[in-house]
Amino acid sequence: MGRLPPTPATIILSFRFDFLHIMKSYRKELWFNVPTRVAFINITSQIDECLDESGVREGLVLINAMHITASVFINDDEPGLHHDYDAWLEKLAPHAPVSQYRHNVGEDNADAHLKRQIMGREVVVAVTRSSSR
Amino acid sequence: MGRLPPTPATIILSFRFDFLHIMKSYRKELWFNVPTRVAFINITSQIDECLDESGVREGLVLINAMHITASVFINDDEPGLHHDYDAWLEKLAPHAPVSQYRHNVGEDNADAHLKRQIMGREVVVAVTRSSSR
Amino acid sequence: MGRLPPTPATIILSFRFDFLHIMKSYRKELWFNVPTRVAFINITSQIDECLDESGVREGLVLINAMHITASVFINDDEPGLHHDYDAWLEKLAPHAPVSQYRHNVGEDNADAHLKRQIMGREVVVAVTRSSSR
Repeated sequence: MGRLPPTPATIILSFRFDFLHIMKSYRKELWFNVPTRVAFINITSQIDECLDESGVREGLVLINAMHITASVFINDDEPGLHHDYDAWLEKLAPHAPVSQYRHNVGEDNADAHLKRQIMGREVVVAVTRSSSR
Repeated sequence: MGRLPPTPATIILSFRFDFLHIMKSYRKELWFNVPTRVAFINITSQIDECLDESGVREGLVLINAMHITASVFINDDEPGLHHDYDAWLEKLAPHAPVSQYRHNVGEDNADAHLKRQIMGREVVVAVTRSSSR
Repeated sequence: MGRLPPTPATIILSFRFDFLHIMKSYRKELWFNVPTRVAFINITSQIDECLDESGVREGLVLINAMHITASVFINDDEPGLHHDYDAWLEKLAPHAPVSQYRHNVGEDNADAHLKRQIMGREVVVAVTRSSSR
């Protein structure tokens, strides 16, 4: 008389592991204190840390701003360029006069909403063999 | 004499369900009639509805414009801000004179192509435990 | 005396194939020689080719620029519009004078970093039944 071996599920799944891409997901919120009205913060090492924690080796990583006056973007971390972005965004969407914007009733950040649209909300990055490119 | 129980596949898959993330995908097209040249339409409730219909509890949702003179973006649904976006986009990429744009041969929407590049084509949003953030 | 049939893993997985969405990923780098300072290159057919090679029938495709002064975007492939984008980007983020940008120490491409932020870094496109939309 035969019976099913004690752990068939384990045997079958591990045997076929390479056929079966088990999909994971990992989520983390990063919080930043920003002492100035505008700031550029390099978060690359925090993202690398998230990738390590996630154990994801192949897939996509979405990095997005939660606030609607903040942006996530990928470009040079170079102070001259950050100055240029700051001055340029200020030229395209000036902060003042605050009263030029209808949004600025009890607020003064209408320009920040506009600036964010230029710089973008998110980046989606390919993860391959656990190095993000 | 033993034999394999009648529904081994079902037993194994349901037993190991928590190890096995079964991947789904869901697609829906949303259509809008827009009576003016420029309009801002809040589609948040339609997106929430799609998420419910999809049954996806963890993953990513891509919301993109199909037309190349339309944008999908995330920001305040506030009429003052919409007025500010409208006026600002008109300043950065004016509609008139129509003849300033080489694209405007038999068309008059070159400015709309430019405005869309500022506002963006898509958003990719994280879905966690069935609430989109 | 019974025993487990010789290939139960195969039987179970193939039987349940429609329940089990096996996730694939595919990655390819495309390289372009660009003889001018600014160029618009239509890469749609290369993307279609990648989709065919990947065998992906349902999912997402991320197409992103690797260089930080390049953009991937979706819009009309029309020479008049390309001229308009070129002239408009030059108006919003002029190349010259090169010295107006602090980034331009030993470089002259600060404007290209700014232009790229307007046009965007990537597109994420839905793949359905092996046709990208």
